[in-house]
Amino acid sequence: MSQPQNPKQAGAIGEPLSALDTPCLVLDLAAFERNLDRLMQSVADTKVAVRPHAKSHKCPEIAKRQIARGAVGICCQKISEAKAFADAGINDILLSNELVGSKKIAAALSLARQLQARSGQLTICVDHPQAAADLNHAAQAAGLRIPVLIELDVGQHRCGVADPRASVALIDQVHRSSGLQFKGLQAYHGSAQHTRTQTDRQAAIDQACHLITRVQRDAAALGIDCATVTGAGTGSYLLEARSGVYTEVQPGSYALMDVDYGRNDWGLSDMPVFENSLFIHTSVMSRPDDRAVVDAGLKSMSVDSGLPVVFGRPELVYQKASDEHGVIVASTQTGQPGQPGQPDQPNELVGRLPALGQTVLLVPGHCDPTVNLYDVLHVMDQGVLIDVWPISARGLLF
Amino acid sequence: MSQPQNPKQAGAIGEPLSALDTPCLVLDLAAFERNLDRLMQSVADTKVAVRPHAKSHKCPEIAKRQIARGAVGICCQKISEAKAFADAGINDILLSNELVGSKKIAAALSLARQLQARSGQLTICVDHPQAAADLNHAAQAAGLRIPVLIELDVGQHRCGVADPRASVALIDQVHRSSGLQFKGLQAYHGSAQHTRTQTDRQAAIDQACHLITRVQRDAAALGIDCATVTGAGTGSYLLEARSGVYTEVQPGSYALMDVDYGRNDWGLSDMPVFENSLFIHTSVMSRPDDRAVVDAGLKSMSVDSGLPVVFGRPELVYQKASDEHGVIVASTQTGQPGQPGQPDQPNELVGRLPALGQTVLLVPGHCDPTVNLYDVLHVMDQGVLIDVWPISARGLLF
Repeated sequence: MSQPQNPKQAGAIGEPLSALDTPCLVLDLAAFERNLDRLMQSVADTKVAVRPHAKSHKCPEIAKRQIARGAVGICCQKISEAKAFADAGINDILLSNELVGSKKIAAALSLARQLQARSGQLTICVDHPQAAADLNHAAQAAGLRIPVLIELDVGQHRCGVADPRASVALIDQVHRSSGLQFKGLQAYHGSAQHTRTQTDRQAAIDQACHLITRVQRDAAALGIDCATVTGAGTGSYLLEARSGVYTEVQPGSYALMDVDYGRNDWGLSDMPVFENSLFIHTSVMSRPDDRAVVDAGLKSMSVDSGLPVVFGRPELVYQKASDEHGVIVASTQTGQPGQPGQPDQPNELVGRLPALGQTVLLVPGHCDPTVNLYDVLHVMDQGVLIDVWPISARGLLF
Repeated sequence: MSQPQNPKQAGAIGEPLSALDTPCLVLDLAAFERNLDRLMQSVADTKVAVRPHAKSHKCPEIAKRQIARGAVGICCQKISEAKAFADAGINDILLSNELVGSKKIAAALSLARQLQARSGQLTICVDHPQAAADLNHAAQAAGLRIPVLIELDVGQHRCGVADPRASVALIDQVHRSSGLQFKGLQAYHGSAQHTRTQTDRQAAIDQACHLITRVQRDAAALGIDCATVTGAGTGSYLLEARSGVYTEVQPGSYALMDVDYGRNDWGLSDMPVFENSLFIHTSVMSRPDDRAVVDAGLKSMSVDSGLPVVFGRPELVYQKASDEHGVIVASTQTGQPGQPGQPDQPNELVGRLPALGQTVLLVPGHCDPTVNLYDVLHVMDQGVLIDVWPISARGLLF
């Protein structure tokens, strides 16, 4: 087979997984499609719209498949990221984040114009009077009207307005801004996503709904309708979808999943099971007696939420990551990893380790920043490379 | 000024730092050049060659400046990374790492041919008889002779051969392989780099030298000269340079530095001081009462070795990173960060926080995987953007 042209493509279409160069990012197409279907089925009996977050995959081919299944559009977190999706044909984009600075505002207006010209739209979040004023003035000067959501801090303590009176004052300001079009509330409870028990997540979302309802009521007293209430992630979206308060949910990680989300106790009996569809394919490139050193380390995965897990191989433990290496050891009977450099590690443990040149699949600890390391996603169907999808928004940080 | 063409370029040449889009990776050219000079001066009274590790910067413009100051070539960790440097004109490359698999061997032979055709060379490390045999057979079939080092495990317990007898057997195998040319030993003590005290680092390097000397003596008894002994990083290189055993050192991080290396007690009175020359330029994009939320998070820096530090602002603490956000709080008198979401945080602390739209510079916790997130490096001289250097080997993982 001829050598692939893109130096970041791990093999030619039609090659089996074992023949792909390593490390590379692979997608199990069947598991991925089941995840997309299960998400849509799980909210079919609610009235919420689904607007998946594209920050987790940064891949227009994935966004198109989400929209084909009924998603109303996507969320992005950066204006340059949104531009990559718009250029790939996505029409309805919510920038679920604040936008500050003249270069970013200019980029946003340019993108809004591009989308409005084809009956699409770019919606932007605001959480500060100055940011709202700056965006309004620039939009007026450009002859544009930009749909805007006010971001509430519903418990994450990151961005957003926490005080209900300040929220309503900002809503009123946006409502009176001729360059802006007030649409509603962004209310994402990020920390609830990784709260491990379903009971605690329910309490967090109940608290969010309480704040949202108060703001809606106070805005209504001024004659302003907070029509859109959007938020939620993979860890909690079914709670928001059933709240009667949210009109739209923004799950992202459900399509790919990762080790960290796998640690959640999902609780709800009708919560869909999302499967790991995203993996790092890696080879054993050094094989001392008591360990297998693989070629995927810190430049192949983000370890902010913990180390990866070796997929389908509970007897193996990815123990340590350095820039270009990962050390895999055999776990003991107690489930604890053996210690490398200990020559008395029992032979039965060492015998479990993969041999030099063999490959394993790793499930990344955290999918979002891991995907952001790769330029292409290798799409596998029944063990064969069938397509290579560009991760077009990789590294687009502005 | 016209809009820059590259969507990852943060501004036009001539713009001041404050005008650059955020987040972006910036290099303080003067500090960077001082680091390069100090490294060369620090080994001027030894006989060792300097072969900086390019895995830390992935940037040919940096490699060229290292070679212009006397470096004999560079190290790379991946064959695709090495190819990017060769294509940019670097002639002498040591792949200081093992190479396993037919695609990687094919890429290595192609690159070796490219470099040999212009009187350059690609040297490769081996730590396993099967890997040596595979490389030898492929080189013979291609009509090439590949310079090879045997990697010793001198204490890191990652790759390399730990047993002296096994090392000499592998040396002998390579020496007798007509497709390979035995050159010496790769002996990098990675864990010594981040050992905090100079005393402990000296003990680690002494132990490495003890093993190297034994292997050299046993190989000499077979009539084989381990002429090259190469290794060392920024944390220990002066010890290897003065050991009388190493012939070449491979520091990388010294050019850029990071928070983690800044934690080392350097100990030696004549050890040069390396300055932070690499920063993430980031803006405050949300400004709740008690915190400043900046636009640089996990996709803008690797946190594997800890969170970034706000440069020159000891009163500010970067407290928490999420994918696209960082939360900065004011430190208390005791040096502890204040708690966001605590409305009783004293006003004097809150007054220290930067305002909406203001920018700060972050020193990344770990430079290597942070650089690997960016496609371009913004070169600043006296506060003005004077050049944009491609990080050509970014994301080249094969």
